[in-house]
Amino acid sequence: MATLALASWATNLTYANLTGAVVDAAVKSVYNWAGCAIGGYAQDAPQIAQNTTQIFFGGPPTSSILGSNGSISESFADAQTAAFVNGIAGHVDDYDDTHLATIIHPAGHVASALLAVSEWQGSVSGQDFLTAFVAGVEAECKLGLSVYPEHYDVGWHITSTTGSIGTAVAVGKLLGLDTTGMQHAIGVAATQVVGMQEFFGSMTKSFHVGRAAQSGMLAALLAQNGFTSSLQGLEAQFGWLHVVSTRENASAYFDQLGEIWEIEQNTFKPFPCGIVMHPTIDACIQLHNETLENGKSISSIQTVNLRVNPEVPVLTGKTDPQTGLEGKFSIYHAAAIGLLFGEATPTEFTDDAVKNDTVISMRNKVNVTTDTSVSEDQADVSITFDDGSTLEKRIEHAIGSLENPMTDAELQKKFIDQVSRVIGEQRAEKAYDAFINIGNMTDVGKLRMLF
Amino acid sequence: MATLALASWATNLTYANLTGAVVDAAVKSVYNWAGCAIGGYAQDAPQIAQNTTQIFFGGPPTSSILGSNGSISESFADAQTAAFVNGIAGHVDDYDDTHLATIIHPAGHVASALLAVSEWQGSVSGQDFLTAFVAGVEAECKLGLSVYPEHYDVGWHITSTTGSIGTAVAVGKLLGLDTTGMQHAIGVAATQVVGMQEFFGSMTKSFHVGRAAQSGMLAALLAQNGFTSSLQGLEAQFGWLHVVSTRENASAYFDQLGEIWEIEQNTFKPFPCGIVMHPTIDACIQLHNETLENGKSISSIQTVNLRVNPEVPVLTGKTDPQTGLEGKFSIYHAAAIGLLFGEATPTEFTDDAVKNDTVISMRNKVNVTTDTSVSEDQADVSITFDDGSTLEKRIEHAIGSLENPMTDAELQKKFIDQVSRVIGEQRAEKAYDAFINIGNMTDVGKLRMLF
Repeated sequence: MATLALASWATNLTYANLTGAVVDAAVKSVYNWAGCAIGGYAQDAPQIAQNTTQIFFGGPPTSSILGSNGSISESFADAQTAAFVNGIAGHVDDYDDTHLATIIHPAGHVASALLAVSEWQGSVSGQDFLTAFVAGVEAECKLGLSVYPEHYDVGWHITSTTGSIGTAVAVGKLLGLDTTGMQHAIGVAATQVVGMQEFFGSMTKSFHVGRAAQSGMLAALLAQNGFTSSLQGLEAQFGWLHVVSTRENASAYFDQLGEIWEIEQNTFKPFPCGIVMHPTIDACIQLHNETLENGKSISSIQTVNLRVNPEVPVLTGKTDPQTGLEGKFSIYHAAAIGLLFGEATPTEFTDDAVKNDTVISMRNKVNVTTDTSVSEDQADVSITFDDGSTLEKRIEHAIGSLENPMTDAELQKKFIDQVSRVIGEQRAEKAYDAFINIGNMTDVGKLRMLF
Repeated sequence: MATLALASWATNLTYANLTGAVVDAAVKSVYNWAGCAIGGYAQDAPQIAQNTTQIFFGGPPTSSILGSNGSISESFADAQTAAFVNGIAGHVDDYDDTHLATIIHPAGHVASALLAVSEWQGSVSGQDFLTAFVAGVEAECKLGLSVYPEHYDVGWHITSTTGSIGTAVAVGKLLGLDTTGMQHAIGVAATQVVGMQEFFGSMTKSFHVGRAAQSGMLAALLAQNGFTSSLQGLEAQFGWLHVVSTRENASAYFDQLGEIWEIEQNTFKPFPCGIVMHPTIDACIQLHNETLENGKSISSIQTVNLRVNPEVPVLTGKTDPQTGLEGKFSIYHAAAIGLLFGEATPTEFTDDAVKNDTVISMRNKVNVTTDTSVSEDQADVSITFDDGSTLEKRIEHAIGSLENPMTDAELQKKFIDQVSRVIGEQRAEKAYDAFINIGNMTDVGKLRMLF
């Protein structure tokens, strides 16, 4: 109850609670700081920081908020805000992508920052955009491989903890930093570690991706302006690799840069929820269809037994989700909606959906057992009907996994479906055409004008 | 060389290096993300994030850059930028303050964010400002005590890692968050962990404080706007206390909130450099004076032997600093300038000072031995002259320590000296009057108009 204790104490504190000695110490602490802040302003560090960040203030809004339906002027913001908001929006549905070997969702922060910076800077070609994008994704995935699973097992959200560094590499690449500048950018990004697993199922999970986008972008911009860091920010004794992990193997993985491409291992989510629930959902959707094909009713299902990898209840063990975001991390909810509706789209992960009585009733029928012999893309699901009959489904490789990837047509359908919900089908079709052709653009900053 | 390897690979990467499969995977990754970002925009999380951050864009500059000498309009920025820049400026000289039990420098991020928000919001009384300030300092120092020294020993910069949370508590207090809101603010702040010791001696050390100010402020503002986090962000298995430390005792320390005031343990730095070097500097300044009193010349010093706490060379072991910022973390430089000049002010920690031939020559005469029986505020220094005679000085409690604190007059002189260098003596005197009376103000937002 440490958080509650602190929050409660602080909210109830009044000036009358402060003794004279406390006030005296506080005033001295404040004015001693003020002297340092005024005196320290003569140094390079605050001046570079100011020059780097205040460009975002008061100038024209340069960068698009992708899902906005407002007028053009309402749909643009400064590059910092755009990177932040698009980063959050791209991850909030847990519908994005997964580098399965590390469970990193690699595209979000990198793409958010690159698009915002490309629009702001102008004249960034599609080829340069993609080259920078690949650099960032390779950087974060190789880093992730270097510390997985130890880093993840501690509780870090590996997507965003590696993501600020990947984003710094991507934006630094776009800005044309030299090697030393890139080292400084990596250093400033490495010292900003955002994301812990406790926040899964709340808005803060997607905040991680938005903040990583901002942090990496800020790191690259500061480095461009001469802000100094360390040239060994990753490998030093008190640098990223050792501070956030008990084991690392970065040299071996960095030796493979450009030889083994991690971006080719990126997979795309068919369902908007935690990736470890996907095999169960895949099974339950198939069982939904088979139940109907057998002439039985879904309401006659009495019990649902899942046999899954031990990580599944650790990451998605919420038995009684109260919000749509919590439902994205409830294996019970996932099984229930797959069986009930035969699909798992954003509609099945809304606040209304998790509070639906029929869904709650089905969730309560779900039993979970774990088995170390079941891998993370496998699941065994068996359902028992009220007549005693059963149906079973074993998923060897969930849809969307490397061995069973989404087809181009499925990916296109996913894009059109989710985008149409927000900006309408006509704009969704245009947006698809714009993004699928991004590599051919001469100015990626014009992309938003195409839809 | 992991950082160099990554930086070098990324800077040399060209589009021509990307295979067709890589480009294809990249395009899919980008457009799959774009679909998620557009589709996800309908969720609450990105909308709250946008509303929270874009208020800083395009409106009038509300918050002061403290050390600016420009016109009023040039001296103000949006609250985010002001908190960032003042946070960096207040720490960049390593001249601020120290909560010795944790080595936290507690005031900087909290004061930077509070001042920026107070100026932006308006009508914040001095009493409310100080109450919020104390809440933030108590929060971060109690947290620090809960995980010290294990958290620090891993390599985290404990000032900023606890500072984002302390700042969130302070700004949340100023905004009047209720207990649940404060818990969410603590959660969003806790998931942003900034600061590693590798970056000591570079601009990135002060960046930690500026970014912690921004992170905590952003957390409080998001919570005020209904952004959800965890209510157990500190104590949960995958929350702050367990992810960043191998041991924690937060409940015991939080029980003492309001009973034992950590702000009363805050000490103020007499020298602008790493705190563990202060006993050595104290000794060397005294030895400088005794040398002259004995009619000897400083140039006749042949060898300098230091016996110090083992943490000293770990944190400040740079033998050959190349910049003023590196000099702040060189025990060799510290001893040299104390002996040579009989003082340690910002002048002795400039780029010129560390490259001065006389200073380099004296640095090369310094030998360091460590002794676990020497505490962090103690030092033994002995110097040998070319005639074979010696002088010795043992510091039991360095000037500025709790047992030997700076007097009010010394604190005032420190303020005037460092502030005069940047904004002139007349404004420095006014600034001192303004800050010393902050508790009596009816609107802290007017403070900057007083100097």
